[in-house]
Amino acid sequence: MTRWRVTVEYDGTPFVGFQRQTNGPSVQAALEDAIEKFSGERVTVHCAGRTDAGVHALGQVCHFDLERPRTADTVRDAINAHLRPQPVSVLTADEAPEGFHARLSAKGRAYLYRIVNRRAPLALDGHRAWLVQAPLDAAAMHDAAQRLVGKHDFSTFRAAECQAKTPVKTLDALVVSRRGEEIEVEARARSFLHHQVRNMVGTLKLVGEGKWTTADVAAALAACDRAEGGPTAPPDGLYLIRVTY
Amino acid sequence: MTRWRVTVEYDGTPFVGFQRQTNGPSVQAALEDAIEKFSGERVTVHCAGRTDAGVHALGQVCHFDLERPRTADTVRDAINAHLRPQPVSVLTADEAPEGFHARLSAKGRAYLYRIVNRRAPLALDGHRAWLVQAPLDAAAMHDAAQRLVGKHDFSTFRAAECQAKTPVKTLDALVVSRRGEEIEVEARARSFLHHQVRNMVGTLKLVGEGKWTTADVAAALAACDRAEGGPTAPPDGLYLIRVTY
Repeated sequence: MTRWRVTVEYDGTPFVGFQRQTNGPSVQAALEDAIEKFSGERVTVHCAGRTDAGVHALGQVCHFDLERPRTADTVRDAINAHLRPQPVSVLTADEAPEGFHARLSAKGRAYLYRIVNRRAPLALDGHRAWLVQAPLDAAAMHDAAQRLVGKHDFSTFRAAECQAKTPVKTLDALVVSRRGEEIEVEARARSFLHHQVRNMVGTLKLVGEGKWTTADVAAALAACDRAEGGPTAPPDGLYLIRVTY
Repeated sequence: MTRWRVTVEYDGTPFVGFQRQTNGPSVQAALEDAIEKFSGERVTVHCAGRTDAGVHALGQVCHFDLERPRTADTVRDAINAHLRPQPVSVLTADEAPEGFHARLSAKGRAYLYRIVNRRAPLALDGHRAWLVQAPLDAAAMHDAAQRLVGKHDFSTFRAAECQAKTPVKTLDALVVSRRGEEIEVEARARSFLHHQVRNMVGTLKLVGEGKWTTADVAAALAACDRAEGGPTAPPDGLYLIRVTY
């Protein structure tokens, strides 16, 4: 038996999320079906970060086990051949070290949230970014974001359905930067609560619009109450970009 | 009567091209229909560069005339409201100076061609870039590209159906650069022949693969014969990014 580790890119738009569900197509089902078609083996694919419906990945990491030996090139190319025309692509495939687990072995996860800040609708970036039409102050957003960095109880930014054992997480970085009409928010942590990045971005948007101050963000965090946080940003702008081990 | 100048972004994938045709939806028809819906006036929309089927624009420029006075914000927002859900967006609208013509007044056009150079299929950039799986030497492509810069007879890179009066054009710049797995080709000129950018990119790809040398490109140009040029790169990677006046 060989444990395979793959890096996966996908457009989350047509999926109910990474995880297999009964109500629509999932990235997990797409991968498991493609693996079975090429190998004849029915496997379970485990991922590092269970992205929600509409959330994208540039560097999701998954693992699965195959009984029969294969070359890495075969694994990557054969899965890709059977994934077509679904927007899921295996970027790399490697034999994993002993005991490797995509989720449990992960030491860090990085997400990117893309905002396009302009009046006009998105012709090319529809479903790939969040269109915010009110002018945003990215520098103010970045300043406020620094109040969220560190070890905190993030209940204010936690979805009701979150299954994590504790709301205490350590946020390693939350960097807001503007390039022309695009604002990027990069978030890095060992792990995140459900909807944590989208809830933080939705809150920082209030700061960017001038409706909230940095002190309001700090007070919301301290309240440990989802009702005190800003709205959840849409999934369209969110990308799982990197997992480290 | 007011002549309006608009900057337009579009995803070329679902269109037969900019120009109205009988065999499918065009960007021109989308704009003219949206303008009529908001204004009640039937206009002809003229563009700076008639992009082909599948070719995108980040900064196409168009003009049209409206009898009744409107504010610039109304023109932009009302056209956009009626364009939905088509992937066409008016970025800016301004009253044009006396005698302005989107095509005839243009002094320069800039196109970007995006190549993604990797083994794995494109999950997020499908129809937005050309996937080239063989490793490309971007520096060699850039060197060869410099042989095309300047005033030349570009018959080797001209589509058979091109309607330009002469194949002689002045190519102001052709810059090839790599950022990670992405190779960008930027082309600037007062005007281009039909398929000129895609035919140049298809030829430079041969250089990148090591199949052609810089001397081969120079010889092909000198031959003034389409049969001596490389293949036409697909439309997916091409963007009209800027028009100058």
